[in-house]
Amino acid sequence: MHLFYQPDVQTVPCLTDDESRHAVKTLRLGVGDTIAVTDGHGNRFSAVITKADPRQCAFRITGQQSTPSRPFSIRLCVAPTKNLDRIEWFVEKAVEVGIERISFFFGQHSERRVLKLERLEKIAVAAMKQSLQSWLPQLDEAVSFDNLLKTVGEDQRFIAHLPEQSANTDEPPAHLLRAATSGGQYTVLIGPEGDFSERELQAATTAGFRMVTLGQNRLRTETAALVACQILTILNT
Amino acid sequence: MHLFYQPDVQTVPCLTDDESRHAVKTLRLGVGDTIAVTDGHGNRFSAVITKADPRQCAFRITGQQSTPSRPFSIRLCVAPTKNLDRIEWFVEKAVEVGIERISFFFGQHSERRVLKLERLEKIAVAAMKQSLQSWLPQLDEAVSFDNLLKTVGEDQRFIAHLPEQSANTDEPPAHLLRAATSGGQYTVLIGPEGDFSERELQAATTAGFRMVTLGQNRLRTETAALVACQILTILNT
Repeated sequence: MHLFYQPDVQTVPCLTDDESRHAVKTLRLGVGDTIAVTDGHGNRFSAVITKADPRQCAFRITGQQSTPSRPFSIRLCVAPTKNLDRIEWFVEKAVEVGIERISFFFGQHSERRVLKLERLEKIAVAAMKQSLQSWLPQLDEAVSFDNLLKTVGEDQRFIAHLPEQSANTDEPPAHLLRAATSGGQYTVLIGPEGDFSERELQAATTAGFRMVTLGQNRLRTETAALVACQILTILNT
Repeated sequence: MHLFYQPDVQTVPCLTDDESRHAVKTLRLGVGDTIAVTDGHGNRFSAVITKADPRQCAFRITGQQSTPSRPFSIRLCVAPTKNLDRIEWFVEKAVEVGIERISFFFGQHSERRVLKLERLEKIAVAAMKQSLQSWLPQLDEAVSFDNLLKTVGEDQRFIAHLPEQSANTDEPPAHLLRAATSGGQYTVLIGPEGDFSERELQAATTAGFRMVTLGQNRLRTETAALVACQILTILNT
Protein backbone atom coordinates (compact mmCIF):
# COMPACT_ATOMS: atom_id res chain seq x y z
CA MET A 1 0.00 0.00 0.00
CA HIS A 2 1.28 3.51 -0.83
CA LEU A 3 2.50 5.49 2.17
CA PHE A 4 2.07 9.26 2.30
CA TYR A 5 3.15 11.94 4.76
CA GLN A 6 0.80 14.48 6.27
CA PRO A 7 2.03 15.91 9.59
CA ASP A 8 -1.44 17.29 10.38
CA VAL A 9 -3.31 14.21 9.19
CA GLN A 10 -5.74 14.22 12.12
CA THR A 11 -6.91 17.79 11.46
CA VAL A 12 -6.24 18.04 7.71
CA PRO A 13 -7.67 15.00 5.87
CA CYS A 14 -5.89 15.90 2.60
CA LEU A 15 -2.49 15.19 1.13
CA THR A 16 -0.06 18.06 0.56
CA ASP A 17 0.29 19.58 -2.93
CA ASP A 18 3.29 17.45 -3.85
CA GLU A 19 1.79 14.25 -2.55
CA SER A 20 -1.64 14.95 -4.05
CA ARG A 21 -0.02 15.28 -7.46
CA HIS A 22 2.05 12.16 -6.87
CA ALA A 23 -0.99 10.15 -5.75
CA VAL A 24 -3.38 11.24 -8.48
CA LYS A 25 -1.12 11.98 -11.46
CA THR A 26 1.78 9.57 -10.99
CA LEU A 27 0.20 6.67 -9.12
CA ARG A 28 -3.19 7.21 -10.77
CA LEU A 29 -4.98 6.64 -7.48
CA GLY A 30 -8.69 7.41 -7.47
CA VAL A 31 -11.74 7.70 -5.23
CA GLY A 32 -12.16 4.58 -3.16
CA ASP A 33 -8.50 3.56 -3.31
CA THR A 34 -6.90 2.74 0.01
CA ILE A 35 -3.72 4.55 1.11
CA ALA A 36 -1.60 4.78 4.24
CA VAL A 37 -0.76 8.15 5.75
CA THR A 38 1.79 8.81 8.48
CA ASP A 39 2.12 11.95 10.57
CA GLY A 40 5.83 11.33 11.09
CA HIS A 41 5.23 11.07 14.82
CA GLY A 42 4.74 7.35 15.09
CA ASN A 43 1.18 7.16 13.79
CA ARG A 44 0.14 5.50 10.59
CA PHE A 45 -3.41 5.79 9.35
CA SER A 46 -5.16 3.68 6.77
CA ALA A 47 -7.42 5.86 4.68
CA VAL A 48 -9.67 5.83 1.63
CA ILE A 49 -9.42 8.53 -1.04
CA THR A 50 -12.66 10.58 -1.15
CA LYS A 51 -11.56 13.24 -3.66
CA ALA A 52 -8.88 12.50 -6.27
CA ASP A 53 -7.81 16.13 -6.76
CA PRO A 54 -4.20 16.46 -7.98
CA ARG A 55 -3.89 19.71 -6.02
CA GLN A 56 -5.60 18.49 -2.86
CA CYS A 57 -6.31 14.79 -2.61
CA ALA A 58 -8.81 14.23 0.18
CA PHE A 59 -9.18 11.05 2.20
CA ARG A 60 -11.20 9.53 5.03
CA ILE A 61 -9.32 7.81 7.84
CA THR A 62 -10.43 4.22 8.39
CA GLY A 63 -7.87 3.01 10.89
CA GLN A 64 -4.86 3.92 12.99
CA GLN A 65 -1.73 2.09 14.01
CA SER A 66 0.85 3.57 16.37
CA THR A 67 4.53 2.68 16.55
CA PRO A 68 6.27 3.51 19.84
CA SER A 69 9.55 5.38 19.64
CA ARG A 70 12.66 3.21 19.94
CA PRO A 71 14.03 2.35 23.41
CA PHE A 72 17.15 4.31 22.42
CA SER A 73 17.72 7.43 20.39
CA ILE A 74 20.49 8.50 18.05
CA ARG A 75 21.43 12.09 17.38
CA LEU A 76 24.19 12.68 14.86
CA CYS A 77 25.80 16.09 14.69
CA VAL A 78 27.58 16.47 11.37
CA ALA A 79 29.64 19.16 9.70
CA PRO A 80 28.14 19.54 6.18
CA THR A 81 30.44 18.27 3.45
CA LYS A 82 31.81 20.55 0.74
CA ASN A 83 29.95 18.42 -1.80
CA LEU A 84 26.23 18.59 -0.96
CA ASP A 85 25.51 15.22 -2.60
CA ARG A 86 27.43 13.54 0.18
CA ILE A 87 25.41 15.03 3.00
CA GLU A 88 22.21 14.32 1.08
CA TRP A 89 23.26 10.69 0.76
CA PHE A 90 23.94 10.58 4.47
CA VAL A 91 20.50 11.96 5.35
CA GLU A 92 18.76 9.48 3.06
CA LYS A 93 20.71 6.50 4.37
CA ALA A 94 20.58 7.50 8.04
CA VAL A 95 16.80 7.88 7.84
CA GLU A 96 16.47 4.51 6.12
CA VAL A 97 18.61 2.81 8.75
CA GLY A 98 16.90 4.70 11.56
CA ILE A 99 17.85 7.88 13.38
CA GLU A 100 16.03 10.28 15.70
CA ARG A 101 17.78 13.57 15.05
CA ILE A 102 20.33 15.06 12.68
CA SER A 103 22.05 18.32 13.58
CA PHE A 104 24.47 20.27 11.46
CA PHE A 105 27.30 22.52 12.52
CA PHE A 106 30.07 24.57 10.96
CA GLY A 107 33.48 23.77 12.38
CA GLN A 108 36.68 25.77 12.22
CA HIS A 109 37.86 23.54 9.35
CA SER A 110 34.50 23.40 7.54
CA GLU A 111 34.75 24.41 3.88
CA ARG A 112 30.97 24.73 3.56
CA ARG A 113 29.46 27.69 5.39
CA VAL A 114 25.87 27.52 4.14
CA LEU A 115 23.33 24.72 4.37
CA LYS A 116 19.67 24.88 3.33
CA LEU A 117 17.46 22.37 5.11
CA GLU A 118 14.53 22.38 2.69
CA ARG A 119 15.94 19.85 0.26
CA LEU A 120 17.30 17.68 3.06
CA GLU A 121 13.87 17.62 4.70
CA LYS A 122 12.31 16.42 1.44
CA ILE A 123 14.94 13.69 1.25
CA ALA A 124 14.22 12.67 4.85
CA VAL A 125 10.49 12.42 4.18
CA ALA A 126 11.08 10.35 1.04
CA ALA A 127 13.44 8.02 2.91
CA MET A 128 10.97 7.62 5.79
CA LYS A 129 8.25 6.60 3.36
CA GLN A 130 10.59 4.43 1.31
CA SER A 131 11.61 2.48 4.40
CA LEU A 132 8.01 2.31 5.62
CA GLN A 133 8.65 4.12 8.89
CA SER A 134 6.22 6.28 10.86
CA TRP A 135 8.76 8.50 12.58
CA LEU A 136 10.34 11.45 10.78
CA PRO A 137 13.70 12.41 12.30
CA GLN A 138 14.25 15.95 13.44
CA LEU A 139 16.63 17.99 11.29
CA ASP A 140 18.28 21.02 12.88
CA GLU A 141 19.54 24.15 11.15
CA ALA A 142 23.32 24.39 11.05
CA VAL A 143 24.88 26.34 13.91
CA SER A 144 28.41 27.06 15.09
CA PHE A 145 30.25 24.28 16.90
CA ASP A 146 30.15 26.19 20.18
CA ASN A 147 26.41 26.79 19.91
CA LEU A 148 25.88 23.14 19.02
CA LEU A 149 27.54 22.01 22.23
CA LYS A 150 25.03 24.10 24.20
CA THR A 151 22.12 22.15 22.69
CA VAL A 152 23.21 18.71 23.89
CA GLY A 153 21.22 17.22 26.74
CA GLU A 154 22.11 14.52 29.22
CA ASP A 155 23.03 12.03 26.52
CA GLN A 156 25.86 9.59 26.13
CA ARG A 157 28.22 11.96 24.36
CA PHE A 158 30.81 10.93 21.81
CA ILE A 159 33.10 12.67 19.40
CA ALA A 160 34.49 10.60 16.53
CA HIS A 161 38.17 11.17 16.07
CA LEU A 162 40.82 9.02 14.44
CA PRO A 163 44.16 10.03 15.93
CA GLU A 164 47.12 10.41 13.56
CA GLN A 165 48.69 7.03 12.99
CA SER A 166 51.99 8.54 14.02
CA ALA A 167 50.66 9.70 17.36
CA ASN A 168 51.90 7.13 19.86
CA THR A 169 51.08 9.36 22.78
CA ASP A 170 48.42 8.38 25.29
CA GLU A 171 46.20 5.34 24.70
CA PRO A 172 44.02 5.47 21.57
CA PRO A 173 40.29 6.21 21.96
CA ALA A 174 37.89 3.29 22.45
CA HIS A 175 35.68 2.03 19.64
CA LEU A 176 32.17 3.53 19.79
CA LEU A 177 30.78 -0.01 20.05
CA ARG A 178 32.61 -0.47 23.38
CA ALA A 179 32.28 3.07 24.68
CA ALA A 180 28.49 3.23 24.33
CA THR A 181 26.03 1.24 26.41
CA SER A 182 22.75 -0.05 25.00
CA GLY A 183 19.41 1.63 25.56
CA GLY A 184 20.89 5.10 25.74
CA GLN A 185 20.22 8.52 24.29
CA TYR A 186 23.29 9.09 22.12
CA THR A 187 24.82 12.19 20.65
CA VAL A 188 27.77 11.74 18.32
CA LEU A 189 29.83 14.53 16.78
CA ILE A 190 31.30 13.96 13.30
CA GLY A 191 33.85 16.47 12.06
CA PRO A 192 34.33 18.12 8.65
CA GLU A 193 36.70 16.93 5.92
CA GLY A 194 39.40 18.99 7.63
CA ASP A 195 38.57 17.25 10.93
CA PHE A 196 37.98 19.01 14.24
CA SER A 197 40.41 21.68 15.35
CA GLU A 198 42.40 21.11 18.53
CA ARG A 199 40.28 23.81 20.17
CA GLU A 200 37.06 22.01 19.18
CA LEU A 201 38.35 18.67 20.46
CA GLN A 202 39.22 20.39 23.71
CA ALA A 203 35.84 22.14 23.95
CA ALA A 204 33.99 18.87 23.29
CA THR A 205 36.03 17.00 25.87
CA THR A 206 35.34 19.73 28.40
CA ALA A 207 31.64 19.45 27.55
CA GLY A 208 31.75 15.77 28.47
CA PHE A 209 32.17 14.24 25.02
CA ARG A 210 34.24 11.07 24.98
CA MET A 211 36.63 10.58 22.09
CA VAL A 212 35.88 7.38 20.16
CA THR A 213 36.99 5.70 16.94
CA LEU A 214 34.68 4.09 14.39
CA GLY A 215 37.25 1.56 13.21
CA GLN A 216 40.68 1.34 11.63
CA ASN A 217 39.99 3.07 8.34
CA ARG A 218 39.97 6.78 7.69
CA LEU A 219 36.36 7.50 6.74
CA ARG A 220 34.86 10.38 4.84
CA THR A 221 32.62 12.67 6.89
CA GLU A 222 29.35 11.25 5.59
CA THR A 223 30.62 7.68 5.83
CA ALA A 224 31.72 8.18 9.42
CA ALA A 225 28.30 9.60 10.28
CA LEU A 226 26.47 6.65 8.78
CA VAL A 227 28.87 4.15 10.36
CA ALA A 228 28.32 5.74 13.79
CA CYS A 229 24.57 5.48 13.25
CA GLN A 230 24.95 1.82 12.28
CA ILE A 231 27.19 0.96 15.23
CA LEU A 232 24.67 2.36 17.71
CA THR A 233 21.78 0.66 15.91
CA ILE A 234 23.56 -2.69 16.02
CA LEU A 235 24.56 -2.17 19.65
CA ASN A 236 20.82 -2.04 20.34
CA THR A 237 19.91 -4.97 18.08
CA MET B 1 51.74 11.48 2.87
CA HIS B 2 50.03 10.95 -0.53
CA LEU B 3 49.01 7.35 -1.23
CA PHE B 4 49.08 6.00 -4.78
CA TYR B 5 48.06 2.70 -6.34
CA GLN B 6 50.36 0.64 -8.55
CA PRO B 7 49.45 -3.08 -8.64
CA ASP B 8 52.84 -3.94 -10.14
CA VAL B 9 54.82 -1.62 -7.90
CA GLN B 10 57.62 -4.13 -7.28
CA THR B 11 58.35 -4.62 -11.00
CA VAL B 12 57.17 -1.26 -12.35
CA PRO B 13 58.63 1.64 -10.30
CA CYS B 14 56.37 4.22 -11.98
CA LEU B 15 52.88 5.53 -11.32
CA THR B 16 50.12 4.88 -13.87
CA ASP B 17 49.17 7.60 -16.37
CA ASP B 18 46.30 8.91 -14.27
CA GLU B 19 48.27 8.90 -11.06
CA SER B 20 51.39 10.37 -12.66
CA ARG B 21 49.32 13.32 -13.86
CA HIS B 22 47.66 13.63 -10.46
CA ALA B 23 50.99 13.52 -8.64
CA VAL B 24 52.89 15.93 -10.86
CA LYS B 25 50.20 18.27 -12.20
CA THR B 26 47.63 18.36 -9.42
CA LEU B 27 49.70 17.72 -6.29
CA ARG B 28 52.79 19.42 -7.78
CA LEU B 29 55.05 16.69 -6.41
CA GLY B 30 58.64 16.77 -7.65
CA VAL B 31 61.91 14.86 -7.60
CA GLY B 32 62.90 13.99 -4.04
CA ASP B 33 59.36 14.16 -2.67
CA THR B 34 58.28 11.18 -0.60
CA ILE B 35 55.11 9.25 -1.52
CA ALA B 36 53.39 6.05 -0.44
CA VAL B 37 52.42 3.42 -3.00
CA THR B 38 50.21 0.40 -2.39
CA ASP B 39 49.87 -2.67 -4.59
CA GLY B 40 46.33 -3.29 -3.36
CA HIS B 41 47.46 -6.65 -1.99
CA GLY B 42 48.34 -5.60 1.51
CA ASN B 43 51.67 -3.97 0.80
CA ARG B 44 52.43 -0.30 1.17
CA PHE B 45 55.75 1.08 0.05
CA SER B 46 57.35 4.36 0.93
CA ALA B 47 59.12 5.79 -2.09
CA VAL B 48 60.93 8.86 -3.36
CA ILE B 49 60.10 10.44 -6.70
CA THR B 50 63.06 10.16 -9.10
CA LYS B 51 61.40 11.50 -12.27
CA ALA B 52 58.49 13.97 -12.07
CA ASP B 53 57.03 13.09 -15.47
CA PRO B 54 53.26 13.79 -15.69
CA ARG B 55 52.90 10.81 -18.05
CA GLN B 56 55.09 8.42 -16.10
CA CYS B 57 56.17 9.52 -12.66
CA ALA B 58 59.08 7.33 -11.58
CA PHE B 59 60.00 6.54 -7.98
CA ARG B 60 62.53 4.58 -5.92
CA ILE B 61 61.22 2.34 -3.15
CA THR B 62 62.73 3.14 0.23
CA GLY B 63 60.64 0.99 2.53
CA GLN B 64 57.84 -1.56 2.76
CA GLN B 65 55.05 -2.19 5.23
CA SER B 66 52.69 -5.15 4.94
CA THR B 67 49.17 -5.37 6.33
CA PRO B 68 47.81 -8.90 6.85
CA SER B 69 44.37 -9.67 5.46
CA ARG B 70 41.54 -9.51 8.00
CA PRO B 71 40.74 -12.61 10.10
CA PHE B 72 37.36 -12.65 8.37
CA SER B 73 36.20 -11.83 4.84
CA ILE B 74 33.08 -10.27 3.48
CA ARG B 75 31.73 -10.93 0.02
CA LEU B 76 28.61 -9.02 -0.97
CA CYS B 77 26.66 -10.16 -4.01
CA VAL B 78 24.44 -7.34 -5.19
CA ALA B 79 21.93 -6.87 -7.98
CA PRO B 80 22.90 -3.58 -9.67
CA THR B 81 20.39 -0.81 -9.06
CA LYS B 82 18.47 0.85 -11.88
CA ASN B 83 20.17 4.12 -10.95
CA LEU B 84 23.93 3.62 -11.33
CA ASP B 85 24.72 6.36 -8.79
CA ARG B 86 23.37 4.10 -6.07
CA ILE B 87 25.61 1.15 -6.83
CA GLU B 88 28.58 3.48 -7.26
CA TRP B 89 27.82 4.95 -3.85
CA PHE B 90 27.65 1.44 -2.39
CA VAL B 91 31.03 0.47 -3.84
CA GLU B 92 32.68 3.62 -2.49
CA LYS B 93 31.20 3.19 0.98
CA ALA B 94 31.74 -0.56 1.21
CA VAL B 95 35.41 -0.13 0.29
CA GLU B 96 35.82 2.65 2.84
CA VAL B 97 34.23 0.54 5.58
CA GLY B 98 36.12 -2.57 4.48
CA ILE B 99 35.10 -5.42 2.20
CA GLU B 100 36.99 -8.24 0.45
CA ARG B 101 34.86 -8.91 -2.59
CA ILE B 102 31.89 -7.42 -4.42
CA SER B 103 30.01 -9.52 -6.95
CA PHE B 104 27.15 -8.41 -9.14
CA PHE B 105 24.27 -10.43 -10.54
CA PHE B 106 21.16 -9.91 -12.59
CA GLY B 107 18.07 -11.28 -10.92
CA GLN B 108 14.69 -12.11 -12.42
CA HIS B 109 13.36 -8.80 -11.09
CA SER B 110 16.43 -6.73 -12.00
CA GLU B 111 15.63 -3.67 -14.08
CA ARG B 112 19.27 -3.12 -15.00
CA ARG B 113 20.74 -5.69 -17.38
CA VAL B 114 24.13 -4.10 -18.11
CA LEU B 115 26.94 -3.15 -15.75
CA LYS B 116 30.39 -1.87 -16.71
CA LEU B 117 33.04 -2.50 -14.07
CA GLU B 118 35.62 0.04 -15.25
CA ARG B 119 34.12 3.04 -13.48
CA LEU B 120 33.34 1.00 -10.36
CA GLU B 121 36.96 -0.17 -10.23
CA LYS B 122 38.17 3.42 -10.37
CA ILE B 123 35.81 4.27 -7.52
CA ALA B 124 37.09 1.30 -5.51
CA VAL B 125 40.71 2.37 -5.98
CA ALA B 126 39.90 5.95 -4.99
CA ALA B 127 38.05 4.75 -1.90
CA MET B 128 40.90 2.43 -0.91
CA LYS B 129 43.35 5.30 -1.12
CA GLN B 130 40.98 7.74 0.56
CA SER B 131 40.57 5.39 3.52
CA LEU B 132 44.32 4.66 3.60
CA GLN B 133 43.94 0.93 3.05
CA SER B 134 46.40 -1.42 1.35
CA TRP B 135 43.91 -4.03 0.17
CA LEU B 136 41.85 -3.48 -2.98
CA PRO B 137 38.64 -5.54 -2.93
CA GLN B 138 37.91 -7.86 -5.82
CA LEU B 139 35.08 -6.75 -8.11
CA ASP B 140 33.38 -9.42 -10.21
CA GLU B 141 31.62 -8.96 -13.53
CA ALA B 142 27.85 -9.30 -13.28
CA VAL B 143 26.50 -12.78 -13.97
CA SER B 144 23.10 -14.45 -13.79
CA PHE B 145 21.81 -15.40 -10.37
CA ASP B 146 22.16 -19.12 -11.12
CA ASN B 147 25.76 -18.70 -12.25
CA LEU B 148 26.50 -16.59 -9.20
CA LEU B 149 25.38 -19.39 -6.87
CA LYS B 150 27.94 -21.70 -8.53
CA THR B 151 30.80 -19.33 -7.58
CA VAL B 152 30.20 -19.42 -3.84
CA GLY B 153 32.69 -21.41 -1.79
CA GLU B 154 32.40 -22.91 1.65
CA ASP B 155 31.37 -19.64 3.24
CA GLN B 156 28.75 -18.70 5.78
CA ARG B 157 25.96 -18.06 3.29
CA PHE B 158 23.16 -15.58 3.79
CA ILE B 159 20.42 -14.10 1.68
CA ALA B 160 18.86 -10.87 2.90
CA HIS B 161 15.11 -10.97 2.69
CA LEU B 162 12.49 -8.98 4.55
CA PRO B 163 9.28 -11.03 4.54
CA GLU B 164 6.02 -9.22 3.81
CA GLN B 165 4.70 -7.75 7.04
CA SER B 166 1.42 -9.50 6.36
CA ALA B 167 3.06 -12.90 6.15
CA ASN B 168 2.47 -14.51 9.54
CA THR B 169 3.46 -17.89 8.25
CA ASP B 170 6.52 -19.67 9.63
CA GLU B 171 8.90 -17.89 12.02
CA PRO B 172 10.65 -14.78 10.63
CA PRO B 173 14.30 -15.04 9.54
CA ALA B 174 16.99 -14.27 12.14
CA HIS B 175 18.91 -11.00 12.09
CA LEU B 176 22.24 -11.33 10.26
CA LEU B 177 23.99 -10.26 13.48
CA ARG B 178 22.68 -13.39 15.22
CA ALA B 179 22.84 -15.77 12.27
CA ALA B 180 26.52 -15.14 11.50
CA THR B 181 29.41 -16.21 13.71
CA SER B 182 32.57 -14.14 14.03
CA GLY B 183 35.79 -14.91 12.19
CA GLY B 184 34.02 -16.37 9.18
CA GLN B 185 34.16 -16.09 5.43
CA TYR B 186 30.81 -14.54 4.62
CA THR B 187 28.80 -14.33 1.43
CA VAL B 188 25.62 -12.28 1.51
CA LEU B 189 23.12 -11.96 -1.33
CA ILE B 190 21.27 -8.65 -1.72
CA GLY B 191 18.34 -8.58 -4.13
CA PRO B 192 17.27 -5.99 -6.71
CA GLU B 193 14.68 -3.24 -6.16
CA GLY B 194 12.05 -5.78 -7.17
CA ASP B 195 13.45 -8.23 -4.59
CA PHE B 196 14.30 -11.86 -5.25
CA SER B 197 11.81 -14.02 -7.07
CA GLU B 198 10.32 -17.00 -5.26
CA ARG B 199 12.39 -19.23 -7.53
CA GLU B 200 15.59 -17.41 -6.60
CA LEU B 201 14.81 -17.60 -2.88
CA GLN B 202 14.23 -21.31 -3.33
CA ALA B 203 17.43 -21.81 -5.33
CA ALA B 204 19.47 -19.92 -2.74
CA THR B 205 17.98 -21.90 0.12
CA THR B 206 18.74 -25.13 -1.72
CA ALA B 207 22.31 -23.88 -2.23
CA GLY B 208 22.68 -23.51 1.53
CA PHE B 209 21.94 -19.81 1.91
CA ARG B 210 20.20 -18.91 5.14
CA MET B 211 17.50 -16.26 4.99
CA VAL B 212 18.27 -13.31 7.27
CA THR B 213 16.91 -9.84 7.95
CA LEU B 214 19.00 -6.69 8.33
CA GLY B 215 16.55 -4.97 10.66
CA GLN B 216 12.98 -3.74 10.82
CA ASN B 217 13.06 -1.18 8.04
CA ARG B 218 12.64 -1.81 4.35
CA LEU B 219 16.01 -0.81 2.89
CA ARG B 220 16.96 0.13 -0.63
CA THR B 221 19.23 -2.35 -2.39
CA GLU B 222 22.41 -0.35 -1.93
CA THR B 223 21.54 0.52 1.66
CA ALA B 224 20.87 -3.12 2.49
CA ALA B 225 24.22 -4.09 0.98
CA LEU B 226 26.12 -1.53 3.02
CA VAL B 227 24.19 -2.40 6.19
CA ALA B 228 25.03 -6.09 5.74
CA CYS B 229 28.69 -5.16 5.31
CA GLN B 230 28.53 -3.05 8.46
CA ILE B 231 26.79 -5.71 10.53
CA LEU B 232 29.48 -8.28 9.69
CA THR B 233 32.24 -5.76 10.31
CA ILE B 234 30.83 -4.89 13.73
CA LEU B 235 30.26 -8.58 14.53
CA ASN B 236 34.03 -8.90 14.13
CA THR B 237 34.91 -5.71 16.03
